[in-house]
Amino acid sequence: MLILGLDPSLSCTGWGVIRAEGSRLAHVANGQIRTDVKAPMAARLAAIQSALAAIILEHRPMRAAAEEVFVNKNPQSTLKLAQARGAVLAACGMAGLAVNEHAARLVKKAVVGTGAAEKPQVQAMLKVLLPGTCVAGADAADALAVAIADAHLTRCG
Amino acid sequence: MLILGLDPSLSCTGWGVIRAEGSRLAHVANGQIRTDVKAPMAARLAAIQSALAAIILEHRPMRAAAEEVFVNKNPQSTLKLAQARGAVLAACGMAGLAVNEHAARLVKKAVVGTGAAEKPQVQAMLKVLLPGTCVAGADAADALAVAIADAHLTRCG
Repeated sequence: MLILGLDPSLSCTGWGVIRAEGSRLAHVANGQIRTDVKAPMAARLAAIQSALAAIILEHRPMRAAAEEVFVNKNPQSTLKLAQARGAVLAACGMAGLAVNEHAARLVKKAVVGTGAAEKPQVQAMLKVLLPGTCVAGADAADALAVAIADAHLTRCG
Repeated sequence: MLILGLDPSLSCTGWGVIRAEGSRLAHVANGQIRTDVKAPMAARLAAIQSALAAIILEHRPMRAAAEEVFVNKNPQSTLKLAQARGAVLAACGMAGLAVNEHAARLVKKAVVGTGAAEKPQVQAMLKVLLPGTCVAGADAADALAVAIADAHLTRCG
């Protein structure tokens, strides 16, 4: 079972594919989709979508997962994030992929064991859970974390 | 010059195509894209995108226009709207369409003559500006209004 974890954002969308077989997890691929900050919004969203469609076509995950969207303190940031998220979810929908959504707290709990974990703890735990993985960056790490959480939460749920 | 006006929303996205030649405007087509409220978010966003891609392919507009996004009092409504907007803008971007964004106040001013116009005034003015047009609904009317405003604002701008 291949799971695609996603951490959408306008400037840098993280993605990570893991293989989950029972309780065994293995890393498949991860990366980050960056967009040109000078490009118009429609072009940036289309760039995210094209890149993601290619990733889905290459790895053929069975399902996708993302953190539940949250409302940022800055409304403009929230809008940008939500628009990027819309493009990301639409790309999954176009490929027939269901997207499970998990609360950030549950993702941390599934990966580290506590919902109050900080980012460095999550990243350190990734090295334990997916040994030898070269992670493309912080956003790719978040994407791998949500994929791991999805494997765990959906197996247990 | 064909202009595609868009009024994105998750449940019902309005669209309208007009032809603008100098100061002369003519209606080409309009409609509303409804999504199944029971379907998952990714599927709903993909449905909006597929429908919009087909509309763009059929009418081949030169550019698109939408109202600037606003922050709703209800954060969850804002997030839903922004995600739908992301899917809509991405569909335009994928088709190589630039999307002009106009403040709601400027759209009303361009169509009715005052930025404080109410929806019924905008809809009444549509009947004057695009006589004989059968408008699919309130969201399609908003989409036609933003297309008209874009023709006006971009011509003058």
